[in-house]
Amino acid sequence: MSTYTIGPLLHEGKAKRVYRTDRPDLVAVEYKDDATAFNALKKAQLEGKGPLNCRISALVFEWLASRDIPTHYLGLAEGEASRRWMLVRPVEIIPIEVVIRNLAAGSLCQQLPVASGTRLPSPLLDLYYKDDALGDPLLTDARLALLGILDTDLRDRLEQLARQVNAALLELFGRIDLELVDFKIELGLTADQQLVVADEISPDTCRLWDRATDDLQDRILDKDRFRQDLGGVVEAYGQVLKRIQGVCPEPRFYR
Amino acid sequence: MSTYTIGPLLHEGKAKRVYRTDRPDLVAVEYKDDATAFNALKKAQLEGKGPLNCRISALVFEWLASRDIPTHYLGLAEGEASRRWMLVRPVEIIPIEVVIRNLAAGSLCQQLPVASGTRLPSPLLDLYYKDDALGDPLLTDARLALLGILDTDLRDRLEQLARQVNAALLELFGRIDLELVDFKIELGLTADQQLVVADEISPDTCRLWDRATDDLQDRILDKDRFRQDLGGVVEAYGQVLKRIQGVCPEPRFYR
Ligand SMILES: Nc1ncnc2c1ncn2[C@@H]1O[C@H](COP(=O)(O)OP(=O)(O)OP(=O)(O)O)[C@@H](O)[C@H]1O
Ligand SMILES: Nc1ncnc2c1ncn2[C@@H]1O[C@H](COP(=O)(O)OP(=O)(O)OP(=O)(O)O)[C@@H](O)[C@H]1O
Ligand SMILES: [Mg+2]
Ligand SMILES: [Mg+2]
Repeated sequence: MSTYTIGPLLHEGKAKRVYRTDRPDLVAVEYKDDATAFNALKKAQLEGKGPLNCRISALVFEWLASRDIPTHYLGLAEGEASRRWMLVRPVEIIPIEVVIRNLAAGSLCQQLPVASGTRLPSPLLDLYYKDDALGDPLLTDARLALLGILDTDLRDRLEQLARQVNAALLELFGRIDLELVDFKIELGLTADQQLVVADEISPDTCRLWDRATDDLQDRILDKDRFRQDLGGVVEAYGQVLKRIQGVCPEPRFYR
Repeated sequence: MSTYTIGPLLHEGKAKRVYRTDRPDLVAVEYKDDATAFNALKKAQLEGKGPLNCRISALVFEWLASRDIPTHYLGLAEGEASRRWMLVRPVEIIPIEVVIRNLAAGSLCQQLPVASGTRLPSPLLDLYYKDDALGDPLLTDARLALLGILDTDLRDRLEQLARQVNAALLELFGRIDLELVDFKIELGLTADQQLVVADEISPDTCRLWDRATDDLQDRILDKDRFRQDLGGVVEAYGQVLKRIQGVCPEPRFYR
């Protein structure tokens, strides 16, 4: 018997749907099988991706909780039919995508003279303005100030939290022989103004390379398999889940 | 009788050629008629553009000198046949394009939710990595540090000098009823490590709008006429020269 009921759709994104529930302190996130890349120019349905990302995200949020990092995560939905559903706290999403890079890859290598796979001297933090129509542009300090969406204090807290997430994820993925190349997170403010990690953390939003192989393609266990048409996307995500299950706390279920 | 002789070509760019001379403290810049845009995807020959930009740049450098702003400029070459030649001090160009924007226009409006023509609350300074192959990417502080090409002290001096240039140009163009929307400069270090404004300052590198007209196309007196296929490019540059001649010191000739 569940203590909540799914309500109206709040937001349909490219990879997830967010629903109101009958409780104001609770929203439900449905992870879809849809894969998109290059600002949605490339699209596909990948059967099984939704439940995998839902489960991986839950485990990662459990890991972050064990490291005292606040997130929006409350638990998975119960029941076999709910394998793609997660319960989270509603937040006001800060329209900034925070990217931290430990190794160079992807767009960075098209924009700086640095080869893919180069370890950066220190983690590089990039802020992008979350706006699909503008193509999520990179922000400088001055452009961020011009936007006027983030005061200095909140920005400092956001960067500090993102760096804590990086440290925690480096420990997590390091334990299971995965190289955390880079990742994107979204942060939000709860009703009581707490800054928390929101959205998802999964192979859709992280670059993860298998340290067990040197093969430049085989090692890729993230959305780059989809971007680069390498095949085996769902299998790679399954591999990540398999490994991560061994080290993260069991996901709680929301009742 | 000239006291220098043009030597070998040092660098052929899209709009200019730079030559060594028989004097180590002197290089000669030839302004070509070539127009390029969109990282040289669009190209044309515009008869008369070279001499116009040479003369406009000389006048602007004279203006900057009158405002105690150091530049590489030494004077125009003498003689009717030398209308596209300028003598400058050789510098080591810092591979950073400094852009200052007073009003929003161009790429900024594709990257931030700000309409073309919006006056910015304060001049926005953007640094781009000068690398045609990478498409001159925008730099954040962290990416600039990663590149390792500009220490904090030099960066501060560069930004300060660029803002002085903006103030001087706003005064200059304001006097002749031209709106200085934005501009790009390159800076360099002389043999004795003096930081100076180098390259050119012309309608190829500034956005200039005629305040005398409200027509969104007619008012454009810069390279956007070429980018947007508006025609009358050379005529517009001629208009800028005509006005600027009235206020800048007469250009000196290098003997
Ligand atoms: N706790 C939360 N409360 C409210 N909204 C959330 C929460 N967590 C994530 N979201 C938002 O829900 C949406 C998730 O959908 P999805 O990731 O599919 O969107 P998207 O296609 O990536 O589009 P977007 O550019 O909006 O992220 C995102 O807009 C995300 O910011
Ligand atoms: N005083 C100077 N000493 C040496 N080089 C200079 C000086 N002033 C400008 N330059 C350089 O000369 C070149 C001018 O050519 P041009 O402007 O046509 O180049 P470009 O096609 O724009 O290519 P680039 O990307 O190199 O600027 C530029 O590379 C510029 O940096
Ligand atoms: Mg998303
Ligand atoms: Mg140039």
